[in-house]
This record gives sequence, C-alpha cells and structure tokens, in this order.
Amino acid sequence: MLRTNKNFERLSQNYLFREVSERVEDFKRQSGQTDIISLGIGDVSLPLPKTIAEAFAKTANEMATEKGFKGYPPTAGYDFLRLAIADKYNKLGAFVQADEVFVSDGAKSDLTNLLDLFDEPTALVVSPSYPAYVDDNILHGNKVKFLTVTKEDGFLPRTKNVARASYVIYLCSPNNPTGVAYSEKTLKEWVNFALSTGSVIIYDGAYEAFIRSDNPKSIFEISGARYCAIEVGSFSKRAGFTGVRCGWSVIPKDLMVGKRSLTELFLRRQSAKFNGVSYPVQVAAFAALTEEGVKASEKNVDYYLNNARLLSDFCDNCGLKRFGGKDAPYLFVKCPDGLNGWEFFHLALTKAKVVLTPGEGFGVGGEGFVRMTSFGKKEQVELAVERLSSLIKTM
Amino acid sequence: MLRTNKNFERLSQNYLFREVSERVEDFKRQSGQTDIISLGIGDVSLPLPKTIAEAFAKTANEMATEKGFKGYPPTAGYDFLRLAIADKYNKLGAFVQADEVFVSDGAKSDLTNLLDLFDEPTALVVSPSYPAYVDDNILHGNKVKFLTVTKEDGFLPRTKNVARASYVIYLCSPNNPTGVAYSEKTLKEWVNFALSTGSVIIYDGAYEAFIRSDNPKSIFEISGARYCAIEVGSFSKRAGFTGVRCGWSVIPKDLMVGKRSLTELFLRRQSAKFNGVSYPVQVAAFAALTEEGVKASEKNVDYYLNNARLLSDFCDNCGLKRFGGKDAPYLFVKCPDGLNGWEFFHLALTKAKVVLTPGEGFGVGGEGFVRMTSFGKKEQVELAVERLSSLIKTM
Repeated sequence: MLRTNKNFERLSQNYLFREVSERVEDFKRQSGQTDIISLGIGDVSLPLPKTIAEAFAKTANEMATEKGFKGYPPTAGYDFLRLAIADKYNKLGAFVQADEVFVSDGAKSDLTNLLDLFDEPTALVVSPSYPAYVDDNILHGNKVKFLTVTKEDGFLPRTKNVARASYVIYLCSPNNPTGVAYSEKTLKEWVNFALSTGSVIIYDGAYEAFIRSDNPKSIFEISGARYCAIEVGSFSKRAGFTGVRCGWSVIPKDLMVGKRSLTELFLRRQSAKFNGVSYPVQVAAFAALTEEGVKASEKNVDYYLNNARLLSDFCDNCGLKRFGGKDAPYLFVKCPDGLNGWEFFHLALTKAKVVLTPGEGFGVGGEGFVRMTSFGKKEQVELAVERLSSLIKTM
Repeated sequence: MLRTNKNFERLSQNYLFREVSERVEDFKRQSGQTDIISLGIGDVSLPLPKTIAEAFAKTANEMATEKGFKGYPPTAGYDFLRLAIADKYNKLGAFVQADEVFVSDGAKSDLTNLLDLFDEPTALVVSPSYPAYVDDNILHGNKVKFLTVTKEDGFLPRTKNVARASYVIYLCSPNNPTGVAYSEKTLKEWVNFALSTGSVIIYDGAYEAFIRSDNPKSIFEISGARYCAIEVGSFSKRAGFTGVRCGWSVIPKDLMVGKRSLTELFLRRQSAKFNGVSYPVQVAAFAALTEEGVKASEKNVDYYLNNARLLSDFCDNCGLKRFGGKDAPYLFVKCPDGLNGWEFFHLALTKAKVVLTPGEGFGVGGEGFVRMTSFGKKEQVELAVERLSSLIKTM
C-alpha cells in the first residue's frame, strides 16, 4: 500500500511561526484587542528601494514586447546576475566565480534542495537555530545531532564540544535567533574542523548585510572554505526582497565529496528539478547589487540597525541580559524572573500587546529566552519598548 | 564519511534537453551555420499579453510604496489567486476549493516537491513521457515502473497492461511528448484503477489550455478523482509564463492516504520548506485569469494551435505517421525510413537546419519518433516545414 512520508510524524507538531501567529489570533479574538505590535516574525517593513522596484517594473513591462520577452530562464540564473553576485564576494576578498553561483527563488528553497546532494548525512545543527534546518533534515530522513550553545559561551558554537565525524554542518552568522555574529576565529575553527573531518558546512549568510564590524561577511573570507563550504545567500533582508523572492547558493568548484564535485551534482539536480527564477525578479536582484541599489538597501539596513539599538538600550536599561542587536537584526533576550520563553511570550502579548518569539521554538539552547527582531517601523519599536518597559517595571 | 546521493548515478547521464542543445551548439561551431530553426524545446515565443505585463509591472512599482509593499507571501499563495484558480476549475464543473490550491514557482518544482508526501512509493510512469517524472523519482530513491505505450494503442495508457498495486501514477494530458489528449473514458479507467488499488494520480495539466475538443481539461471533471488525484497546473503555456514562473497544485481535501490528509501534509511541507511566490508574479497570474487575460492568452494559444496545424499538414502531406497536433502544442512523428529518433534528429539538424527532439529521450515507448513543438513563430514554422519537406523528398 501507498504510505505517507513517516518523517512528518517526527516533525515538531507545529511550525513555530504558525504557532505564534495562531496564539496571537486567538488573543485578538478573545480580547477584542487589535493594537498589537510584532517584534516576532522576521519580515521587513520598509518598502522596496525605488531604484530596484523601477528596474523590476520596467522589465515586467518589457515582457510584453518582442524584444523584451524572455522565456525559460537558465537553470542556475542569468549570467548578469551570477557575475554580480560573484563580484559581491570578490569585493570582500572572497574568491567566487560566476559559475559557482546558483540563483534561486529564496534561501529557504536552497536549504532543502541542497540536501539532495548527500546520502543520508548526519546534520549538525546549532541549538538554538532557524527551525528549517531541522525540519528539512527530518523530512529528508536524515539524522540530526544538536550542538547546544548557551549564554555562558556567548552562544558561540565550539568544535571541542562535538564528536569528530563528518557532518553537514549548519552555521548562520549573524545567527538567527541569537543575533550573534561569528568572529574570524570561530569560523576558522569550523573550517578546520570541516577540512579535517570531511564535513561540509552549509553557511547561511542571509543576514550578512547587517554586519558592520570587521567580523567576516562570508565563509569564503576564511582560507580553506572553498574546499568544505557552501554559502546560501538572500536578497530578502539585505534589499527587502521577502515578497520578491530571490536567493542564491555558492558551491565552489573545489568542493568535492569523494570524487564528486558538488557544483556539478547541484547543476544536475537543478536541471532536472527546477526551471529557474523569474526574469524580472533577476533583473531586480541585479539592480540591488548596483552602486545605487546597494546604497539604497544599506539605508534600509541602517534603519533596522537603529531599531536594534533601541531594543538593545531597552534591555540594558531594564537589566535584561541580551545577545545580538549589533551586526544583526535580532536580539536574544533572557526572560525576566526565571520565566520560560512561552511564559514571557504570553505575558508580553496579553499585558503589553507585544509579540515576541519564544526561544524554545528554536531548540533547547533557546530555553528561557525570547527573540526580538528589529524589522518593524521605528515608531512601533519605540512603542513596543515603552510598553515592555512598563511591563517589566510591574514584575 | 559523508557520501554524495548515490541516486545521481542512476540518472541517465545527460538531461535530454541539455544533450540536444549541446549537439546543436557543436553543429553550429563545426559548420559555421547559425540559421537554425528549433522545433525542439518547449518554450513559448510570443510575448506576455500586455494586460498581464501591465498588472505585473504596476505591482512591481507599487512595492516601492508604503501602501503597495508586501513582504513574505502566504506559503500556499494569496487568497485572491487561490480563489481565481479554484474558480477556473469550477467553471469546468470540476469542484475545487481555494484552500486546496497551492501556488508555486512552477509545475516542475511541484512535481518534485509532491514526492515528499510519500514513503518510498513506486512510481508508475507512462513511457514516453516528460523526463522529470523519472528523474524526480530516481533522485528521491523511489522505484519506477514503466508503462510503455505504442503507436498501435494510439499512445493511450491502458490499466489492463499494469499489475494491480498502489502506485503514484503520472498522467499528462495532452501528453508531452505524444500530443495525445486523453478522453473521458481513458481518465475514468485510471480514476477507477487508482480508487480500487489505493493509488494516487499526479495529473499534469500543464497543456490543458490547448484542449479545444470535448476531452476533459482537468482530472477533477472525472467522478471520484477528488479521492485519488492531485492536479498540477501551470501558467507557462497557457499565458506565456515560462520566464515569469508560476504554477500550482490542487490537493483535494478528500484525498487521504491511510488516515492522513495529503492537503494537510503538503501545507506542512510548504510551511517548513518554502517561502511562497513573488507577490507581483501572483498578481500577474491573477491577471491571466481575468476575462481580459484569458482572452489575450487564448489568442496566443490559437496562434500555436495554428502552427500545430501547419506541422500536422506537413506530416500528412509527406506521409509521416503522426500523433497529436490537435488539442496539444506537440506532435509525435514517426521517423521516415526506419530511422531512430537520434538519427532523424541528426539528419534534420545537419541537412535541414531544423532541431527536433528525439523520441528516445522520453523513454523506450518513444523509439523511432521525434517530437515537434508548435511554440515557434509562424514564419519559422513555415520555413521549417519547407526545409523538412525538401529533406523528406530526397530520402
């Protein structure tokens, strides 16, 4: 008989963000309150920069002309965009070639599609982290090993805490949810670990545009990474593309598993299973990498970083221990009074009408914390700070 | 040690369409010829209808405004589009509800993503057929059983030729590559087979807009299909979206495997692994379903159907046995002089400068045939017909 994928049974029952939104909806319905501020889900709030939207719209319009129409895009993306993405890395001193770049409809799709490359790997996932890493591997039937990081270690994953074996290792910097950006030293430690164990690092750089210190913005800034790492990137947060949908993966040609090139295998995978990304979307993504596009996008990132500072100040003023908020759109905040994340979530929702994300939803290392995001409008963040400050004072 | 996915070794070494394009490039380079006409790959050639491009561009522009900006789209698509797609079915008398519709970046993505629903199923694939059905299942590690259809049967798959068991059954009507549209009788036979064996049909309706006879345009026109079928649809061919990227799957809530609802499981899958489709793309897709959009799109389909008639007439005049060309953008043509598909491909390329697709590339049932597509410009199709007629006369 036909059976359903048994791995669905192994998934945690509710997808974190859906669970949060359902609880918020329940509260709205029961209380009649509508004036809720979300410091929860990580969606951007500022519109797309005008220069990017214009390029997008112009190309969409030209699709109605003989000259401007484009059919199926190349599987791995148009050369103009692959070159521009490679160039972005090269400016950091990270060597990447255009034919190592695979353009996609978003990092989330890549994260799961990349797993097609491996044969029953064991995933090594930092806990807490973005839930998709775990869900992808569970649905794929892979084993998942957790590396729990704690506030005592500054939420930094250390190789000494891991049994030596070959894994698919997930690293995200700046990290979601902790907001911690990894130093060159930390990344070197992991590259060396991967090289010496035959592991492959999947490096999630979705938030790299928020790094303003000298922490690395790409794993490929680290010597040796071309032999052991894939980097997944996204236009979502750097250029406000959450509703436009464009991301990429870099798979260096030096990256071999056994005698097989992962670049070649992924091209084969994409040729068989994927028909490429909307042409006008790729033109918009290209516009986001021009000088004008980068400037406009960075202005938006500055705005969110300013929000992060407001939230950091709030935590510091209230004596709440926090991580992130610098080099990152996220803060990971210790709950007051020994509350766990869902308890503080509930309190903040019902007493302060502010939505936080419970740290528990990101894995055991997140217990007793909540995630705050800085993607809201400044006035909303200020109001949230005001409400949360009042709440904390009553505790 | 980490190993690569061993299923890559089981894939046929070259992806058909890449192999064809490489051979064409080789010929161009060696011969210096550039004036090649492709009746090969199935990409559309007419621009996007103006009314659709305008909706697309307007929305892209509005993404730069506070009011028009949209972030992450709903996982399964915006309600406005899901409703419009459901309505399209309802107009055929096929009952579909909006929350059974999952909007995606294209049918090709859906075809592979749907396999996440099952636990090591055996796929039943009609041979010849679209190579992605086989590649998807092989990369997933599934068993594939072929049902070879032949010219003697009119390339119609018959259940009597299949051992009774529960499969994931792939049906595509009108069929790629044969161009044969399945009758109500044929589809009923398969729905009854699926219901009585506990199989699930994945019905590929990518070319349904070409059906102008009274053959069914959706599997859901068949009684009982809601209990055993998923339908995959696409805007690519019906509205020229190959470069825009939008498709959908319909998973009826009546479709259970064991005690599990596939609708619920797929929503869970998409929530974990997919961040939805570009908002402006969804608005463009909606525009393609308005009265004006449908009218403009049908004009393009008429144009391609006229090309198909020119190709049919050519075959009939030259005494080449052919299938399809009616209700379909494809013709499946018996090679002259007992040539196999690759031989006739080579001859047509080098002597007539026309690209055909060898039937062998679609599976054993395609041996000795070539596929012709009607997606080119009329003048090009006429020129191809002229050149091929001259070639045939010399044989």
